This record gives sequence, structure tokens and C-alpha cells, in this order.
Amino acid sequence: MVNLELIKSIAKPSPTKIVLIVVDGLGGLPHPETGKTELETANTPNLDRLATKGICGLIDPVSPGITPGSAPGHLALFGYDPLTCNIGRGVLEATGINFDLQPGDVAARGNFCTVDKAGLVTDRRAGRISTEKCAELCQLLDKMEANEVKLFVCPVKEHRFVVVLRGDGLCADVTDSDPQQTGVAPKVVMALQPKADKLANIANQFIARAKTILAEQHPANMVLLRGFSKRPQIPSMGEIYKLKPAAIAGYPMYRGLAKSVGMKVLESGASIEEGFMTLKQNFASYDFFFLHIKGTDSAGEDGDFDRKVRVIEEFDRALSSLISIEPDVIVVTGDHSTPAVLKGHSWHPVPILLYSKWCRTDSASKFSESACACGGLGRFPTTDLMALAMANALKLNKFGA
Amino acid sequence: MVNLELIKSIAKPSPTKIVLIVVDGLGGLPHPETGKTELETANTPNLDRLATKGICGLIDPVSPGITPGSAPGHLALFGYDPLTCNIGRGVLEATGINFDLQPGDVAARGNFCTVDKAGLVTDRRAGRISTEKCAELCQLLDKMEANEVKLFVCPVKEHRFVVVLRGDGLCADVTDSDPQQTGVAPKVVMALQPKADKLANIANQFIARAKTILAEQHPANMVLLRGFSKRPQIPSMGEIYKLKPAAIAGYPMYRGLAKSVGMKVLESGASIEEGFMTLKQNFASYDFFFLHIKGTDSAGEDGDFDRKVRVIEEFDRALSSLISIEPDVIVVTGDHSTPAVLKGHSWHPVPILLYSKWCRTDSASKFSESACACGGLGRFPTTDLMALAMANALKLNKFGA
Repeated sequence: MVNLELIKSIAKPSPTKIVLIVVDGLGGLPHPETGKTELETANTPNLDRLATKGICGLIDPVSPGITPGSAPGHLALFGYDPLTCNIGRGVLEATGINFDLQPGDVAARGNFCTVDKAGLVTDRRAGRISTEKCAELCQLLDKMEANEVKLFVCPVKEHRFVVVLRGDGLCADVTDSDPQQTGVAPKVVMALQPKADKLANIANQFIARAKTILAEQHPANMVLLRGFSKRPQIPSMGEIYKLKPAAIAGYPMYRGLAKSVGMKVLESGASIEEGFMTLKQNFASYDFFFLHIKGTDSAGEDGDFDRKVRVIEEFDRALSSLISIEPDVIVVTGDHSTPAVLKGHSWHPVPILLYSKWCRTDSASKFSESACACGGLGRFPTTDLMALAMANALKLNKFGA
Repeated sequence: MVNLELIKSIAKPSPTKIVLIVVDGLGGLPHPETGKTELETANTPNLDRLATKGICGLIDPVSPGITPGSAPGHLALFGYDPLTCNIGRGVLEATGINFDLQPGDVAARGNFCTVDKAGLVTDRRAGRISTEKCAELCQLLDKMEANEVKLFVCPVKEHRFVVVLRGDGLCADVTDSDPQQTGVAPKVVMALQPKADKLANIANQFIARAKTILAEQHPANMVLLRGFSKRPQIPSMGEIYKLKPAAIAGYPMYRGLAKSVGMKVLESGASIEEGFMTLKQNFASYDFFFLHIKGTDSAGEDGDFDRKVRVIEEFDRALSSLISIEPDVIVVTGDHSTPAVLKGHSWHPVPILLYSKWCRTDSASKFSESACACGGLGRFPTTDLMALAMANALKLNKFGA
């Protein structure tokens, strides 16, 4: 397991530049007809050229056999132990919308939902109301106060909102009110330890008042809360790696993740090409870039093998603009595998390619799962990747005499 | 290192079936004349077919360079950290003969031995007396009581027996009386911490009384005790993996190991073929099978290269009956290596092959040490195997948001 204290003690600032490209859900499984994975099917001349000059391998986000969610998958890529640094859903959503969470604040993810006359949930997403409607309803609920605790209610997108509770002595160790199914009543929030009684009581008061206030707002006539959590005490990437890191990511959750570890989130157009343009424009101002490509994972989740192939090819074309500005280290990998044939995240180790002047290249001449399985990097925990990238950028001092 | 709390939190019951075949001491070293290992020498069409469709690799039971005994080797296969979950010799022997150990009981492995007039050990195994004689002598020693502690003395095989001490406040942290050599007197059992004084005293009383009782029973005129231990607090496989596991193993120790982790031990004929028949007959009733093949290890220990090859071939023939009933996951591996040229267990990593519909196959087309060294699974700790098998059987939920 990576030792952040060790890295912190040997990391040194330097002008070299690292680009970490996370192709979400990159790893795949063979198409039943061709025997080739999505990555093996795609025409990827730029990736193959990088693989030829670089070194390949396979990485395990958590450990062999474990299918990670996006948060643990990304935390591991940034070098944090995903088991001890898990970030709650509430915090991720709050950070993703730029809410300025204070230490001690508790955040929860909220859904506006529909309940029938008996109080049973009939739609967990209230028919996906518009983001404008969501903002309007949040205003009705915002700025409550109970037991000297302030509540902030902020819209996210469609039916999604965030509630933040601010006050002394809040412990986030409580259960969700979201039952994760329809046909049942929302659950009562319960404390999982005595210290959490205060938060559970206030959350239940909020839910009861929301029900009254929203009574006439069908279909959004109730709220569901989940993922109560505090901002974890994660040391920033600047602190550990002495880096000045920037993130380019379209989706709020990944922006939230990047912010949680101290990255500057850059504004960018939504397309892959625009992401690379943003990177080039900001190339002089930072020494570490996290570029997130979402389309591969979405296509995998939808079971759309061909679309995943096309997104990989689109990414490969855009990649040439990055290669031309010659970053010292380029890493291309994923936060987990999302094989289209499984229609979801999976446990399979993730292909990785690392290019630098000092990478000790292997015989791989194509970026693919099978080439990576024989690659010179072997198979290793994702949490070791940051140290490897730093080393290849000559940003780590020697350890010990 | 595998995290059992994590696995427990994401394991889900499902109808899919996993078969784990442990070919004891599977890994080998090249024959000096042919340059091929036992596994590479054997004709194994069924294993090679599985390797072609499956994925191969190498596993380390404890860590690189460490030669494991059978107990740590198997515990690692079942997903338990062999360093923290070590099971004492006494407990293994007691469990292997179906003694119903209670929490708090202390068990020790016993040998009937021969001492001369001066009390020095002349034969640690009393000329390997018959099992019948052993049972008869155990009856003479059984059911003693001292300081409100009851002692049970049960025969195992030949000169081997088990003594179990049952009473309040017994701590097993004591030394052996078995000096592990001849020409010296049996040792006095000594407490390694104050809490263990009670047990040490009772053990020494038992040994003294046994000496008196056995005085006229030459060659079995004394006892030697070792491996005082309690049943460890190991969570069962059912608890962790939500599995209903069954074991097919001929030798008492492996039956004991399987029972220690909550498997149902099935009765079976002794041959490899009968083992597979038992598996097929019980296929509907369990979702995890541990099938133990002992002959490979015995042949390796005897330095009999050719016999080890023959046992592997016999196993390969029997394997076809398993393939025909289509378990969702088949794993073939060993608990450690036992190269015939070393005549004993060794530290070499163990070949593993995993077959499932979702395994992401590699280029291996033969099951061998050299193919496994280039296999798609790479090299990983044996303790990660259960998570991998569970994942391939779609028995694990995603971790984290």
C-alpha cells in the first residue's frame, strides 16, 4: 500500500509536467463475435504510438475482484487509499456544485420525489423535474434553523439537491431516509451511534417540515436524503506531492472529487476536443493535469459496445494535440473497467499506459488489455500510480542514504 | 492485503456456483534432464482446454520467498490472512477427528513415545503402534479431571492422539513438552504469560499421571504434547462470503481446516474420481466447493517426480466430469509448491487457472508454470483469490459511490 508520508517526505517541486487522462470505465471484455475488447476493436494510432514508446500494465483500483464506484476509483488514481479515504455522497455532491463546505458541516444528497396519499414513494425522482423547478423548491426549504443548526438547501440538477447542516457537535453517522425503492414510505433517519442523535433528530425535523411545505407541489411533494457525510480530512495533492494540480472534467461528481483533493477545476467546453484545448491553454500555469473522459463509461453502462469504441477513437484523435505539446509524463488509464457486455462497472484490472523519456519501454506496440497483461509495468495497485508518475517526471528525491 | 470487512459488506448470495480445486503442492521445478516441471511434463488436455478459455497467473500463499505449511496455505486460499488467522496444531488435529471443540477449550497434539529407564526419549513415535493400540491407551488416560478442568484423550492414527482440556480460564500460551528429538527428557510445559499458569500446571499433572499409568506399556510408555491451541475466532465463510460451502477432502487435517472456516465436510470415496462424483452428487445443494487432491504433495514430498506427474494426469482425466456440469467458476491451483527435486514444500509461487464466462481470457493455451508466469492474472497474493472467484461468479456488489 502506498505510503503518503513517504511520498510527502521525498516529493520536490519541479517544472516538469504530468498529464493523467482518466478514460472512465476504460477496461472491457471481448465482444462475443470478434473476441476483441472495446479498446482492442478501436482504431487508436496515437495511443498505439504512445504504447510503443511507453510502458504498459494493469492496475487494480481497490484489490483484485473488487468492483469500485467512481469515487474510490478516482481517489486511488490520485494516490489515496480508497478504503480509508472514502468520501460520502453528500460531500461529493456539495463539492461538485461549489458549495463551500466547512469542517464540521454535514452534507446529504437529496432527491425531490413523489409520494401518494398514503405517504408511499411512487417516483424517487419526481418525474425528473426541471432544474429551474428544483431551484425554486430549494428556495422554499432553504435557510431553516433547528437546535442552533443552520440548514442550506441547494439545487444540483433536475430532481437532485444538496442539504448542508452547519452547527456544533454534528456526527454524520446516520442512516438514509431514501428507501431506494418505490411502494414504501421514506425511512426515518436513525443514529448509528449516540453522538449522532442530534443530527438524526434535525434531519427528521427537516424532512417533516419539507413534507408540509411541499404538500401542494405534486409531483415533487416529498424529499429523500442519503449519504450524510462530512468533508474527510484528506491532505491535498499540493501538500503531498508539492504539485500545482488542475482538473478538466465535465460532470459535477468528478469536479467534486478533484476539488476534494485540492485541484483547481478549470472551466471547459464539454467535448473531448474542447477538454484538450483547455489543457493546452492552461499548460503553462500548472504542473499536473487530470483530464476526465466520461463517454466511455456511459456507453459501457448502456451496454453499447460500438459507442464505447467510437468514444475511444474520438479520444485517440484528440490526443494528438496533447502529444504535440510534449508533456514530460502522459498517463492514460481508467478509474475501473466498464465492459459493455456486463453493462456496468466491473472488477477487471484496468489497462494503463505511461509515457515518459525515462519509462524503460516494453515490447507493447498497441494499447490493449492483452498487451497490458504482458506489459513491463506488470499488475499493481492503482494507489501506486501517482508515485510512478512523479518518479517519471523526476519529482521524487531518493529515499534514505 | 484482502479486507474481509470490505468483502463482507459487498458479498451477496446468488445461485451461481464456484468450484475451487486445490491440487496440493501443485507447483514444481524442472526435471534436471528435461527442463520441464511436473505440471509441464504431464499430459493434461482438460486443464489445457480450461487454460485456453480461462485466465492464468501465479499466486503467493504468504509472500514471496515464504514456504507455507498446509494450514496457512489453505487459509490463504479461503481468503484469511495466514499470519493473523493461524490455527494451532492441536486444534487442527481435534477438528480433523470431528472432536466438537467448544470456545475456551484448549487442544494439543499428542504422541505416544518410548522413554528409557532414565526417562530419556528413545523413540518419539513409540514404534508407530497400531491405531487400535492407540485407542486402547487413550481409554486409560481419558476423562481425567484436575482443578475443575476436564481432559479428553482421543486417538487419531497410529501413535497420534489429541488431548482437549475444558474448563474456565484456560490460556493456551504455553510451551510444548515434545523435545522434537531423542536422547533427552520430555520438556516441562511452561507458561509464556501469567494467565497461562493454570494450563501449564494441569498439562504437567496430566503428563506425570500418564507416565505412571503407562509405565508397563512399553514401547508406548510416555506421552509428548505440542501445539496447545484454542479454536481461533475466525468468521465463517458463510458469514463473510454469504456462501453455502462444502468440502471434499480425504485427509483429517484438510477436513479440519475446512470445518474451521464453516464448510460442510462431505463424505466421499478416497480416489480423485470418487471426489468428483461426490461433488456432482451434491452440486445442487451448495454454491461453493473445495475439492482437495492430496497425491501430488505426497509424491513431491517423496521426491517422486514421475508419481507426481501421474497424479496430475489422473486428476486431469477426472476433471472432464466436472466441466460437463458447467460450474460458473472453476479455479485450479495449489496451497503451495512441492517440487519433487526439493522433496518438500517450497516458496515458489503457485500456478493458478480461473475459468468463468467473464474472466477476460489471456493467451495461455497450456496450464503450466511458464504459461502462468505470462498469464493475464499476473502475480498476486493467494488471499485475493476468493474475492476474484466471487467477482467472476457475480457475487459481489460494487464498492462505493
